[in-house]
Amino acid sequence: MNSFGTIFRINIFGESHGKWVGITIDGCPAGIDLTESDLLPDLERRKPGAAGTTPRKEDDAPIFVSGVFNYKTTGAPLTIVFENNNTRSADYESLRDTPRPGHADFVLDKKFNGYNDYRGGGHSSGRLTVALVAAGVVAKKIMTGVAINASLTEAGGNADIEAAINKAIADQDSIGGIVTCNVKGLPVGVGEPFFNSVESVISHAVFSIPAVKGIEFGSGFAAARMKGSSHNDALIDDSGTTLTNNAGGINGGISNGNELYFRVAIKPTSSTPQQQNTWNNKSQSVEAFTVKGRHDLCIALRVPVVVEAITAIALADLFLNRTGY
Amino acid sequence: MNSFGTIFRINIFGESHGKWVGITIDGCPAGIDLTESDLLPDLERRKPGAAGTTPRKEDDAPIFVSGVFNYKTTGAPLTIVFENNNTRSADYESLRDTPRPGHADFVLDKKFNGYNDYRGGGHSSGRLTVALVAAGVVAKKIMTGVAINASLTEAGGNADIEAAINKAIADQDSIGGIVTCNVKGLPVGVGEPFFNSVESVISHAVFSIPAVKGIEFGSGFAAARMKGSSHNDALIDDSGTTLTNNAGGINGGISNGNELYFRVAIKPTSSTPQQQNTWNNKSQSVEAFTVKGRHDLCIALRVPVVVEAITAIALADLFLNRTGY
Amino acid sequence: MNSFGTIFRINIFGESHGKWVGITIDGCPAGIDLTESDLLPDLERRKPGAAGTTPRKEDDAPIFVSGVFNYKTTGAPLTIVFENNNTRSADYESLRDTPRPGHADFVLDKKFNGYNDYRGGGHSSGRLTVALVAAGVVAKKIMTGVAINASLTEAGGNADIEAAINKAIADQDSIGGIVTCNVKGLPVGVGEPFFNSVESVISHAVFSIPAVKGIEFGSGFAAARMKGSSHNDALIDDSGTTLTNNAGGINGGISNGNELYFRVAIKPTSSTPQQQNTWNNKSQSVEAFTVKGRHDLCIALRVPVVVEAITAIALADLFLNRTGY
Amino acid sequence: MNSFGTIFRINIFGESHGKWVGITIDGCPAGIDLTESDLLPDLERRKPGAAGTTPRKEDDAPIFVSGVFNYKTTGAPLTIVFENNNTRSADYESLRDTPRPGHADFVLDKKFNGYNDYRGGGHSSGRLTVALVAAGVVAKKIMTGVAINASLTEAGGNADIEAAINKAIADQDSIGGIVTCNVKGLPVGVGEPFFNSVESVISHAVFSIPAVKGIEFGSGFAAARMKGSSHNDALIDDSGTTLTNNAGGINGGISNGNELYFRVAIKPTSSTPQQQNTWNNKSQSVEAFTVKGRHDLCIALRVPVVVEAITAIALADLFLNRTGY
Repeated sequence: MNSFGTIFRINIFGESHGKWVGITIDGCPAGIDLTESDLLPDLERRKPGAAGTTPRKEDDAPIFVSGVFNYKTTGAPLTIVFENNNTRSADYESLRDTPRPGHADFVLDKKFNGYNDYRGGGHSSGRLTVALVAAGVVAKKIMTGVAINASLTEAGGNADIEAAINKAIADQDSIGGIVTCNVKGLPVGVGEPFFNSVESVISHAVFSIPAVKGIEFGSGFAAARMKGSSHNDALIDDSGTTLTNNAGGINGGISNGNELYFRVAIKPTSSTPQQQNTWNNKSQSVEAFTVKGRHDLCIALRVPVVVEAITAIALADLFLNRTGY
Repeated sequence: MNSFGTIFRINIFGESHGKWVGITIDGCPAGIDLTESDLLPDLERRKPGAAGTTPRKEDDAPIFVSGVFNYKTTGAPLTIVFENNNTRSADYESLRDTPRPGHADFVLDKKFNGYNDYRGGGHSSGRLTVALVAAGVVAKKIMTGVAINASLTEAGGNADIEAAINKAIADQDSIGGIVTCNVKGLPVGVGEPFFNSVESVISHAVFSIPAVKGIEFGSGFAAARMKGSSHNDALIDDSGTTLTNNAGGINGGISNGNELYFRVAIKPTSSTPQQQNTWNNKSQSVEAFTVKGRHDLCIALRVPVVVEAITAIALADLFLNRTGY
Repeated sequence: MNSFGTIFRINIFGESHGKWVGITIDGCPAGIDLTESDLLPDLERRKPGAAGTTPRKEDDAPIFVSGVFNYKTTGAPLTIVFENNNTRSADYESLRDTPRPGHADFVLDKKFNGYNDYRGGGHSSGRLTVALVAAGVVAKKIMTGVAINASLTEAGGNADIEAAINKAIADQDSIGGIVTCNVKGLPVGVGEPFFNSVESVISHAVFSIPAVKGIEFGSGFAAARMKGSSHNDALIDDSGTTLTNNAGGINGGISNGNELYFRVAIKPTSSTPQQQNTWNNKSQSVEAFTVKGRHDLCIALRVPVVVEAITAIALADLFLNRTGY
Repeated sequence: MNSFGTIFRINIFGESHGKWVGITIDGCPAGIDLTESDLLPDLERRKPGAAGTTPRKEDDAPIFVSGVFNYKTTGAPLTIVFENNNTRSADYESLRDTPRPGHADFVLDKKFNGYNDYRGGGHSSGRLTVALVAAGVVAKKIMTGVAINASLTEAGGNADIEAAINKAIADQDSIGGIVTCNVKGLPVGVGEPFFNSVESVISHAVFSIPAVKGIEFGSGFAAARMKGSSHNDALIDDSGTTLTNNAGGINGGISNGNELYFRVAIKPTSSTPQQQNTWNNKSQSVEAFTVKGRHDLCIALRVPVVVEAITAIALADLFLNRTGY
């Protein structure tokens, strides 16, 4: 299913080489100021252009189809679409017989009995994250006083991102990275015990971003090597402030009023310029091949704003649904 | 909300010191062999008793309330309850004014305006994982040919678990650990693009287990430091077998037929025997205190079977819901 | 699936001849006064005892399993169970070969491949409505200022209910009836355009009560024969009061602040004392048979409180979920 | 929320006077033959043009945005949009102060705090049923062997529909009608006990159509006046054929293999040419007014294909979700 959320619910649609990609937000409150230009700064952050990103450029001009009237949300389903105006389907035709390593080509073909739109990854394309970024802007506006910031803090194992990119270009090989995200201003009490814990819902959302392979909240994997006495965060006042923040702002699945933070592992872009081996369905043998098309050498560069968006979307649903309050 | 899943849907209920804890499975197919004794081996694995676990012992005898008839599931909602027969509420009364560090005491009090059952963590207690383990047995039975195995591969930063526990006992301080889980026999095509990716749904489920702070699939965080040419898994035959398995058995959110595996970070038990500081609401000052009650020094010892269970539950829902097939 | 609702979500479980039947409410707000005795008046109204009802009597003593602490709801899942202490399974064994006309015996056997608990209708028994009545009391308490009243306004085609029952007893044949329900004090704005219209959600809920075959809101079927000029309700003040109320308190699926009312058609109890024909699977022929067991001659007598309960449950979910507000 | 269904899930969006209206189907199986022209016959049936329908004409040319590739569904979300090319917003500006009787103007204004798009009913417009009809065609294709037929069997209380329309034109007053729907070929076992009964799910869907005020299955309201001995349908063979069909093809909420049928009450079009009274917010008094704009004198003429569509959508979800099978 391609929807996410309970009462602030998003549905995405579209394919890499279709006419439009888009998103519908169901359950958006009425009366929120919203213009198409409000979306542009975040959309701009997702765009390629920097060294290490694909030369495929899209205008990424959002079109409001419904749910906005006189520059305000109406409470009706809010649909936003983006035109795909820069597709080269021919790039992909030759790859049908050779599923690309690291990509979903093989599993999509099997899962959908060959009926999937295979051009550019079809529906399973990073192209659709443009729609997530758009919805993220709306979600951020709902949670007044909450600030979400994600950035790339490591690429190819190097905290000097620029150096890492230059090395990748020199190596002509793709690299991954670490995105760090923090949320300030989140009130105490967001999230539910067990299945709708903040970690559950954010991780669910974040793993829907292509290329994400890991997530850790607060001290995360390091916590597994700590002692309880040093991991526990001592409360120091009435409002729940803690001396340390190993919990990453979450206890028992519920926000505790301290800064929420987590780290996300992004694998190297599957489409590397390097020659690789894969199975050729026609020749029925393993063959060397090189991916064609225009690709990001370090997709992680463009992921932070997507992490912000999906985090905002996940939190907005929990935020609006605080039945315990 | 305390339910999880779309068509194989579980609902848990109960509190640490209530009469019963339990679970209802809605959407369980009819005709699956099931007796209460089928649940015992997994329930036994979750029980305390080993060094490093709590001396609080429960019988953990499952009672089928509904949904089973003549030793088969009927297709109606399947409810299983467990009696709580070993509770000591008095242990907790004195703690109301001093929210325990690392626990959810503070956030639950705020979220539920003081109406939550605070005894032993109330609903937000690890006690409820007994019900998850029970449902996990049912989920495992649904996916014939699929084998899920989780084990504790590291405790307190040490791969020699026994040594780690002995050190924790000597130190009188709690420790965490790493649970590694693999799934064999999962067919190609389980999971959906984007929001119901295998990673999304498993991580959602796994983070509902108290004390989990991180998860990584396949090469996980290490992938962030790899190059595309070495991270990509080359396909080597018609059935999708790959030479390496950095993807952990998942491409584009969908199972690829290779072994699925992931690692889970468990923080140290919050209830450490060590003296700690916390805020005292009565005296309005930070005070030293020591947790009373009976607790696990290394809760991670008891988590693997819970990870197995919740993974089975998550996969069963995706497995039964393969509309793409 | 045996759950209903989005954020005030109920799950029922149990069988007619099992040990317990019960219900879990997920999403119940914390802090609502609730004792087991609060449920008794509505449970009493559902009980048999009057002329025309079954001599099978149950204590119907509600047991709170979870979600209530110190006489208040806690915000955690609220589970209530009822013991079945008056079952006679032997009554049903002989009927396995002869699906009872009007009952679900035949369809349940086919749908669940013979694995369903066939005793007394199993899960598909009116017995489970005891759990709905319990949840209805909770739902009513959530909507302060809202009063829901349902009553039997016609039985066997006769507005004099007592006379109708006496005739049915004399005829030794079961009868149906009409339940009329009104809701006062519902604020403007409950319900959503299209799929979660008040009519959609109430009808969904009401048709889950066994024996319901029709529902109409406001002027209902009569509206189909009216002219627009006489059907339309003229607004006469700022608060939306209308001169007439053909709309039954709902416009465009949303409550308009006037009295909400609807009528429900209840078919005659399927278990009539009269001899009937049915297919005998063993003899492979149509044979005469008479239903044994203890049954209601006019189940409609006991339905009003169930209609009230399920209406409260349906409205509470919409009420708590007014994102448009 | 503007979505419906669990695994075959639809989401509608758009406003009467927006640029497009549309629908996304999430969970549509892959490999179904589908072209835009497949939708035209049903779309044609919904169009105005006959006597008694609005002169507002739309092209109603469906545009596939996603989910279809090489004339087959792909398994990805299927989005279909329709352009609104015949809107006259000016018609509605003057009505802001005078909520139209029978319409949702008043409740929408209150529910959405005045932020709703009020032009032509905004999102709450019958215009959106064009999208439901489109999705209905897809749903029908999924259930091979199942035939759904709805027709207008009564208008203004008259079974001679043409005469009824002529009278309405002569009277210059709007009328309602009765839509009768039957479903042939539905296998035994569709639907669930209690909350997802066939009646529950179909009624939920049907009441989402504007102007519907009642529904009855099988003998419906007449059943309330029958005796059990005459209402019960005797089974006469192994496959569940019944001698009569008072149940309308449903027992215990589950299809029994006989013809499924139900009747739907449609109220008269709210926009009648007759002068009416309503509250004027500006003058703060009741005033006479006449609806302007182009409207259907008998909207019931155009409803049957919408009932067919929404019935197909509701059944497809139950059909694909037969976990009991």
